[in-house]
Amino acid sequence: MVTTQQLDAALGTALETAGRGHRGANPLVGACILDGDGNLIATGYHLGAGHPHAEVDALRRLGKLDPATAGKLTMVVTLEPCNHTGRTGPCAKAIADAGIGQVHYAVSDRTAASGGAQYLRSRGIPATQFADDAAARALNHRWFLSKEQDRPFITVKLAQSLDARINAPDGTSQWITSPESRNHAHGLRARVDGILIGTNTAVIDNPRLSARTRDGQLHGKQPYRLVMGQRELPESLALAEGDGWEQINTHDVHTVIRRANELGLGHLLIEGGATVASAFIEADLADELYCYQAPLLIGAGSSSVNLPTTTLGQAHRYRLDSSSNESLARLGDDIMLHLEPLPSA
Amino acid sequence: MVTTQQLDAALGTALETAGRGHRGANPLVGACILDGDGNLIATGYHLGAGHPHAEVDALRRLGKLDPATAGKLTMVVTLEPCNHTGRTGPCAKAIADAGIGQVHYAVSDRTAASGGAQYLRSRGIPATQFADDAAARALNHRWFLSKEQDRPFITVKLAQSLDARINAPDGTSQWITSPESRNHAHGLRARVDGILIGTNTAVIDNPRLSARTRDGQLHGKQPYRLVMGQRELPESLALAEGDGWEQINTHDVHTVIRRANELGLGHLLIEGGATVASAFIEADLADELYCYQAPLLIGAGSSSVNLPTTTLGQAHRYRLDSSSNESLARLGDDIMLHLEPLPSA
Repeated sequence: MVTTQQLDAALGTALETAGRGHRGANPLVGACILDGDGNLIATGYHLGAGHPHAEVDALRRLGKLDPATAGKLTMVVTLEPCNHTGRTGPCAKAIADAGIGQVHYAVSDRTAASGGAQYLRSRGIPATQFADDAAARALNHRWFLSKEQDRPFITVKLAQSLDARINAPDGTSQWITSPESRNHAHGLRARVDGILIGTNTAVIDNPRLSARTRDGQLHGKQPYRLVMGQRELPESLALAEGDGWEQINTHDVHTVIRRANELGLGHLLIEGGATVASAFIEADLADELYCYQAPLLIGAGSSSVNLPTTTLGQAHRYRLDSSSNESLARLGDDIMLHLEPLPSA
Repeated sequence: MVTTQQLDAALGTALETAGRGHRGANPLVGACILDGDGNLIATGYHLGAGHPHAEVDALRRLGKLDPATAGKLTMVVTLEPCNHTGRTGPCAKAIADAGIGQVHYAVSDRTAASGGAQYLRSRGIPATQFADDAAARALNHRWFLSKEQDRPFITVKLAQSLDARINAPDGTSQWITSPESRNHAHGLRARVDGILIGTNTAVIDNPRLSARTRDGQLHGKQPYRLVMGQRELPESLALAEGDGWEQINTHDVHTVIRRANELGLGHLLIEGGATVASAFIEADLADELYCYQAPLLIGAGSSSVNLPTTTLGQAHRYRLDSSSNESLARLGDDIMLHLEPLPSA
């Protein structure tokens, strides 16, 4: 017999475990499996798009189950198990096939992957929603918002000095941040579906925008490259080497989002420059920020963010992402902040 | 018999222990006491000006010693014991009076407090300098520089948004930082001898510049208040309530330093505004920075630092103060960085 207290505690553990993954095309999800007495026997989490879902991760940790044992087990998960075959099979089917006795989930899935609870019930497995899903909604509040707004999850990267400059007045900017920060940022590139920069950044910095390992090798998955803006681009751009890029001839963030949707990009990384990053921040389209800060004061040059603010009440407010295991970190000589917008009141 | 390895290890421990204190009018100092077999039996550190010195702190932890025991003990200290009666008595005398058998110290004291080793020897106590004092010099490299330059140790406080703004274009700035950050900054005020602001800050923000506890009570020690600049000040300034303030009618940082020396201020805190802080940073007179960052993007308004930089090579480079136990901290919703200038190569 599993008590309500045990279920609530398991949900707490599942929420914590969820933070080991990365939000992006998919939300953070955590799962726990309890035995017939309500003892925790496995946890699982979703590392990110392309990796096993939390429920399957937890099931794998248990290994092969005989039907009598499995039938006594309870799965607790922060999000309704999916009923969708994407890069991985549907979790609802995996749970039913494993013979799990009952399922409790927090947030109900309203995306295209919904229907998992109904599927489980159709296989004779009680699937119950927690009465209080506030913490589980909060865990992914911006991810749910991005789905409601029918757009990619959007990460904005800022790389700046202590005084938030991204270059000196003569344009020099290499390298403000540390090798460790740049390596971390390449890890971001490897997780996203698309990277966006502005035409000025494309011309002036001429980045490759590839996701590379510490020793310069290409990651297996490479992001699609988008360049936003109306400036004509030279043919010799570094990012034009190889496939998978295009210019979007606009200054409008919503036009960019429509194109990203057409391309099926579930997770978009905004790498700059300041004008592009600021446009997404101003439109409240930054679902998370990674802010890399190098320990220097430049004292002049371009600021990382420029907004049409006139008074302090209009400032955009964030918080260190408390769900993340890595909301404030030292990267070599730099520090890195992982932030999310404050939930609207 | 104490081995060289034991002495080196004790110096390492003393250097670490030193970081529990705060640099200011006095440097960071740590001490260890070893028994006759070279075992560590006590550590001590100097919390800051007005508190016991590291050697006395370590002796106190041992309690009363009988002469036979004391004679077998070795004191290891990161800085030559002082021979100076200031707010506390001379350490060299305290060590000799306790009957300690031998002393090993790292950096030799060249300030007005020097002569401790000679005093110890005059009392028949071998006092030996470590061959390698590089780590102990590095621990206080900026403090030693401030003494060589015959000036106060200077702390610069920056309180800013993530994008390094200190106000919005309409001047609104209260409160960018969290109550926890402001409380921490009041702790700084309570440790320094003087606080400096510019005339514009005095007029516009009209701060009291008193050091207050979390519940608004005045700390026992209050800093002397200096206002730098040529703008005429109104008589109704908040900081003019009570004694202990003056205007220095100059824009020159060196004039301010001369006056601080005349006033006997060993530790000066620069609280802003941006022009005053930047002048000290540009003159390489910021011995440490406390940078409080609130998690918001203002996107316009004044920057915390403005320097006549043209190219990145001229940027002022810092590092998280590795000697400190608190070089990167969360203060409520804010973060705080404690930085020191990179040592010159």
